[in-house]
Amino acid sequence: MHSIGIDIGGTKIAGALVSDSGEVLVELRQPTPADSPLAITDVVVGMVEQLRVGREVVAVGVAAAGFIDASQSTVYYAPNISWRHEPFRDRLRERIDLDITIDNDANAAGWAEFRFGAARHTHDMTMLTIGTGVGGAIVTGNGLLRGGFGTAGELGHLRLVPDGLPCGCGARGCLEQYGSGRALLRMANDVADAGGIGRPLALERERSGTLTGDALARLLTDHDAGALHALRELGGWLGQACASLSAVLDPQIFVFGGGVSIAGDLLLDPIRESYAAHLPARGYHPEPTFVVAELVNNAGVVGAADLARIHATTDNSERLS
Amino acid sequence: MHSIGIDIGGTKIAGALVSDSGEVLVELRQPTPADSPLAITDVVVGMVEQLRVGREVVAVGVAAAGFIDASQSTVYYAPNISWRHEPFRDRLRERIDLDITIDNDANAAGWAEFRFGAARHTHDMTMLTIGTGVGGAIVTGNGLLRGGFGTAGELGHLRLVPDGLPCGCGARGCLEQYGSGRALLRMANDVADAGGIGRPLALERERSGTLTGDALARLLTDHDAGALHALRELGGWLGQACASLSAVLDPQIFVFGGGVSIAGDLLLDPIRESYAAHLPARGYHPEPTFVVAELVNNAGVVGAADLARIHATTDNSERLS
Repeated sequence: MHSIGIDIGGTKIAGALVSDSGEVLVELRQPTPADSPLAITDVVVGMVEQLRVGREVVAVGVAAAGFIDASQSTVYYAPNISWRHEPFRDRLRERIDLDITIDNDANAAGWAEFRFGAARHTHDMTMLTIGTGVGGAIVTGNGLLRGGFGTAGELGHLRLVPDGLPCGCGARGCLEQYGSGRALLRMANDVADAGGIGRPLALERERSGTLTGDALARLLTDHDAGALHALRELGGWLGQACASLSAVLDPQIFVFGGGVSIAGDLLLDPIRESYAAHLPARGYHPEPTFVVAELVNNAGVVGAADLARIHATTDNSERLS
Repeated sequence: MHSIGIDIGGTKIAGALVSDSGEVLVELRQPTPADSPLAITDVVVGMVEQLRVGREVVAVGVAAAGFIDASQSTVYYAPNISWRHEPFRDRLRERIDLDITIDNDANAAGWAEFRFGAARHTHDMTMLTIGTGVGGAIVTGNGLLRGGFGTAGELGHLRLVPDGLPCGCGARGCLEQYGSGRALLRMANDVADAGGIGRPLALERERSGTLTGDALARLLTDHDAGALHALRELGGWLGQACASLSAVLDPQIFVFGGGVSIAGDLLLDPIRESYAAHLPARGYHPEPTFVVAELVNNAGVVGAADLARIHATTDNSERLS
């Protein structure tokens, strides 16, 4: 039984026909017309029409960055697109005769990891997506935790430091300012400024005018001491956040996705160390495992498609919405 | 359909026969023989025998402070009783021919508030029990969030301050050190030490040698400026914790139980103010309400009984354990 997943990103829209075992059968990509909600709707409708030709499709799941309401129909707010209280499901339904659901993009990616990726053998997972910012997804008791208004799992905005660094969300001290790709670049720049082991970072920065994520990734691959120092600082903060999240959510597994997770154990080892040093009541209860995500590129569309398929094939009485 | 709830506290064991609408039909109390796990088992068995006489009872739910495993059968660790990996459900089953489940006491009390108390009209609730320490319970999608190993909802150990006050759990900066009844007494003592509005607190402390919870409650009832100052400090920290918890859990309602919650709006108003000042992405998504618990004395036994009844009458295939 096939379903369609659409992932609306800041720069591109991805669409895929996905089997019920999470296999991507057909995939499409187009640039995001970010300045026009109507043009985005046109792209989504066009992709669905193209992907369903000659196939039996039960549902369409759309993933987007932002706050989605609990009934999975309205986008409260999307930072990349100029949406405020956009009834996006109804807009699509006028033009698509299929069951449609909207999901937060990090939730969709997390759901894909839970169903078909790194957490497929567990029932309680917490995922942190370490990209430019920090995204989150929570699965508990085999279900996605959406929260009372649909906006749970915003793990990048767990507060780590009172009166800490200002965050784009308007609060201060959020995990996103200490555990994101952008934070890693700030830490690497600090190491470069300090000299010593920071020399290779400083030289790289001089060469290209600014320290890029790609340059940092190269230095990490070469096990450069300064780059590793910055990554350990990042992992230290992430481990502290996971210790707090364990007290709240008690997952069996923490999954790390996003660009920075490509560092693998270079990232996971400092996370594990810091977690162990900060975990409340250590030794009195079982502890989770820490792994990197498996479905790097397709997670958004696969998760959105799977959530939509489950929504369309589950009895209404078993759902909240 | 009746069930029995037992709440094993540090000083007393409470037992009750509870209807399926949460009504307490018969109640029993006995001191806790805290130094002997076997004697505790005897008390529980005796209470169950007494409470079931002449009634049809479907299940027994036992609540205790500590970490309970995900299958609700083993106590990993109970601080008040000398239990380590105690297979308490099996011990009771040898002597009681009923379906038996074990639950964390804060989870049981939270479940009672969700089913029959302050949160009965919601589907996503976060409860904080402000007693000597800080307990927590999370309901999401109409279900109790137990976590991967059974130990979720330990909200007193959300970290608020990096390298903050040492906590009994071995970590530092836990909410319990800033938002508990014990923390409130520390803050009130600090106000007393500072003089000025702290004079009435200092006089009270001189009179009885130490500042007690009861004395502080009296001063709060009289709207003493120093006592209110301490309560506002406590509420400020609790509001900050709730802002972080909203990012993770997004509840519709925060319920505050435990002795300190008797202060009502004197406690809730500073929580609401601090929450509003620290909430990430304020204005871009709906916000929860803040209320005090309704089932002050019976919550533990009522919640344990109800969870046991649901466990006994739910098909095995729908459960994790």
